[in-house]
Amino acid sequence: MDIHALTRELQVKNDSKIVMLVADGLGGLPMQPGGKTELETAKKPNLDALAKIGVQGASLPVCPGIAPGSGPGHLGLFGYDPIQYVIGRGALEATGIGFAMQPGDVAARGNYCTLDANGLISDRRAGRIASDESAPLAIKLREVKIPGVEVFVEPVKEHRFVVVFRAPGLAGNVKDTDPQAVGKAPLQALGLDAPSEKAAAIANEFIKQATKILAGHPKANGLTLRGFSGRPALPSYEEVYGLRAGAIAVYPMYKGLAQLVGMKILGKAQTLNEQVDVMTQYWKDFDFFFLHYKYTDSTGEDGNFNEKVKKIEEFDAVLPRIQALNPTVLIVTGDHSTPSYLKAHSWHPVPTLLVSDCCRPDGHTTYGENTAIRGGLGQFEAKFLMTLALANAGRLQKYGA
Amino acid sequence: MDIHALTRELQVKNDSKIVMLVADGLGGLPMQPGGKTELETAKKPNLDALAKIGVQGASLPVCPGIAPGSGPGHLGLFGYDPIQYVIGRGALEATGIGFAMQPGDVAARGNYCTLDANGLISDRRAGRIASDESAPLAIKLREVKIPGVEVFVEPVKEHRFVVVFRAPGLAGNVKDTDPQAVGKAPLQALGLDAPSEKAAAIANEFIKQATKILAGHPKANGLTLRGFSGRPALPSYEEVYGLRAGAIAVYPMYKGLAQLVGMKILGKAQTLNEQVDVMTQYWKDFDFFFLHYKYTDSTGEDGNFNEKVKKIEEFDAVLPRIQALNPTVLIVTGDHSTPSYLKAHSWHPVPTLLVSDCCRPDGHTTYGENTAIRGGLGQFEAKFLMTLALANAGRLQKYGA
Repeated sequence: MDIHALTRELQVKNDSKIVMLVADGLGGLPMQPGGKTELETAKKPNLDALAKIGVQGASLPVCPGIAPGSGPGHLGLFGYDPIQYVIGRGALEATGIGFAMQPGDVAARGNYCTLDANGLISDRRAGRIASDESAPLAIKLREVKIPGVEVFVEPVKEHRFVVVFRAPGLAGNVKDTDPQAVGKAPLQALGLDAPSEKAAAIANEFIKQATKILAGHPKANGLTLRGFSGRPALPSYEEVYGLRAGAIAVYPMYKGLAQLVGMKILGKAQTLNEQVDVMTQYWKDFDFFFLHYKYTDSTGEDGNFNEKVKKIEEFDAVLPRIQALNPTVLIVTGDHSTPSYLKAHSWHPVPTLLVSDCCRPDGHTTYGENTAIRGGLGQFEAKFLMTLALANAGRLQKYGA
Repeated sequence: MDIHALTRELQVKNDSKIVMLVADGLGGLPMQPGGKTELETAKKPNLDALAKIGVQGASLPVCPGIAPGSGPGHLGLFGYDPIQYVIGRGALEATGIGFAMQPGDVAARGNYCTLDANGLISDRRAGRIASDESAPLAIKLREVKIPGVEVFVEPVKEHRFVVVFRAPGLAGNVKDTDPQAVGKAPLQALGLDAPSEKAAAIANEFIKQATKILAGHPKANGLTLRGFSGRPALPSYEEVYGLRAGAIAVYPMYKGLAQLVGMKILGKAQTLNEQVDVMTQYWKDFDFFFLHYKYTDSTGEDGNFNEKVKKIEEFDAVLPRIQALNPTVLIVTGDHSTPSYLKAHSWHPVPTLLVSDCCRPDGHTTYGENTAIRGGLGQFEAKFLMTLALANAGRLQKYGA
C-alpha cells in the first residue's frame, strides 16, 4: 500500500502547525520482573497532563520483532515505509556526519587498513587507529584528483572515513573492495551495471592515488571501500504532504535524515531549551517541526536506567514552552525502544502520544508503555503516524466520495 | 513484505532455546452470552503464573474473518505467509498421513467411486465404503507398474486414498479427474504445462491399470484423482532463521507440516508427558522445539466444552516440566480457534503468550481470550510470531544502521 499516493491526492493546506517530538530510543523495559520502565518511572507531570487530553498508541517501527537502526526508525516516523526505502551504508554514513548528498552522488564507507610488503591486508582496521591520528589522513586524501569528478573525503571515527564521488551518470551498484579477511589483497571495485561501472572505475582510480598518498604510514597504508550507495530517492515532505517542514536536531545523523526528506535544518541549538528557542523563532515559517532529542537513546545504550529516567524528566520539563506555541497537533514518540536492560535498540513498540482538539482521547491519565498498548491508536506501524498527524491537523480530505 | 528476507539478513546464532507450544484450536467461545470460553473456564495455575511474567497478544492466523485449516494455521505460526505459501490438497493429504514428499513428487488425493455398466459414476464416494474395506484396496493398487515411475499408494479414511508419483521432470499443474457429478464418466487428467502433461500421462496410466484392478468390486470399481500438487517449496528453518528445529508431535499431519519446513521429527511420544520426555532428551541438540497438542482441537470439533476445558487443564499440568528446562523464550499459542460452540475451526484470534526476560510484561495476571486482545503484543498476524520469538531470544540484529 502506497501511503504517499493517498497523501498526494488528499492533502490540503491550512494554517495548522504540527510538532513531532522524537525522544530517541524512548521505549524501555523494567530492570526486574514486576518493575517499571524508564518512562513509567520518570516524574513527568507535563506528559501525563497531555495523556489526559490526548490519545496513545504503540508504534511498531518496522514490524513485530524487528529492531531498527536510526535510519529506518526515522523513515518510519516520517511516513516512509522502512522496508521499501533503504538508505545504503555509504549514504547513511555520509548522512550521519552531516554531508548533504545530492542526487547522483555515490558514497562509500572507507576503512583504513594495514597492508604488508606483498600488498596483502594484515589488519582490516589499521590497528584501530585513533581518531586524532586518522582524521588528518582524510584531509590528505582530498589531494586525489580525478578529471571530471568531484571527490569529497570526510573523516569518521577511528579507522573509518567517508568518500563521496560526484560526476554525471553514476550509480552505486558497486561491490565492496573489502575482501573481509586478512592475508588477502583489497579487491577491485566492480560495477554491476553501466553507471555503476563508471563509479567503480572512479573508485579504483581513487584507491590507486589514495594508496600512494598513504604509502609509508605505519598502520594506515591501505584502504577498503564498502557500502557504495547513491542518495536514496525519497520524495519530499513538500511534495507528499504539502508541508513546509523544519528539523531541529543537535546531532548530524538526524539533521541528515531530515534533509533526505526535504526538511530544512533550523538553527544550531545544542540544548533542548535552545531547540525550543529555534522552534519559537521559526514558528511562523513552517507547518511541521521535527525536534530530535538524543539522550533517551544514549543513556539507554549505556544501560543507565536512572540517567535515562532523568533525561525523560528533562524532556518533560520543556513541554510547557512548546505547548505555549499552541501547536494544532503535538506528537511525542520515539524512533524505536532502547531499553537500558538490553543496552541496545529493540523491537518493542514505542509509546506514542498524539494531542489535538479532535484526537478522541482514550481516557488514560499517564503516558507509558503499558498505557500505550491499550491506547486509542492501538498498535500501529510507525509509517502511519504522518497520516494521523495530517488528519488531526485538518490537512487531509476524505478519500473517495 | 518478505519477512524471511529480513530474518535471513539479520539472524545471529547464540545458545538460546525457543519453545513453541501449540495447543491446536486453543481459542474458544462462551456457550451462552456472558459466559466464559473454555480457556477462561479451565483451572490453569501454571498458565496464569506465566501470564504474570509474560506478554499476551491475539494472533490472527491469516487475516480477520478467515478460519484456516491445519496447513495454513501452522505455516503462519512457523512464520510462512499462509497466503503466499500454499500447500496443495494432494500434498497436504500426503503430508497428513506422514508421507514424506520429496521435491519433484506429485501427489493427488484419490476417491474410490462406483461406476455403472456404462462407465458412468453412480456414487462419487463408493457408498462411503468403510476404512477397513478400503484400506486393502490401496495396498492392491500398489501393483500398478509404470516404467520409470515410482508409484506410492497410501490408504486414508473411508473412500479416500493418496497416490504419489515420483519421476524426473514432473509438476502438479494437473486438472482433477473428478467430474463433480454422478451420471458422468471420470475425466482424463490434463496437464496445463509440459512437466504437468507428463504427470497427467502417468496419472492416466495409473487410472487405467487401477480401474482394471478394481474391476468387479461391488462399490469401489472406479476412482477419481483430485488436488494434484507438488511438494510446496518452503525454505527451511535452518536457512531462514538459522535454527536447528525439532518437532514433537503425535499425529502425522503435524509431523508432516513440520518436516516441510525442515524440522526434525523427534521421538515417538504418544502422551503429553512423553512429549516432554522427548524434549528433555533432545534439549541440547536443538535451538527450537515445536510441540503439538491435538486434543484442544478435537474436543472443540466435537462440541464438547467440558472435555476441552479438561484438555486445557491437562496441558497446563505439564508446563512446570517444560519451564524446568529453562527455555529462553516460551510461547503458548494455537494454530487457530476451535470453539466448542461452533464445532469447527474459526477465525477468532488465538490467545498467545510469550515469556522471556525481555518480553515487556503487560500486567495481565491470567491467560485467556479477553486478556490476549488487551495484551502487549496487540493483535498481530501469526506470521510475525517467529520474528518476535527470534528477537526475544537475541537472535536478530537490528535492521539498518
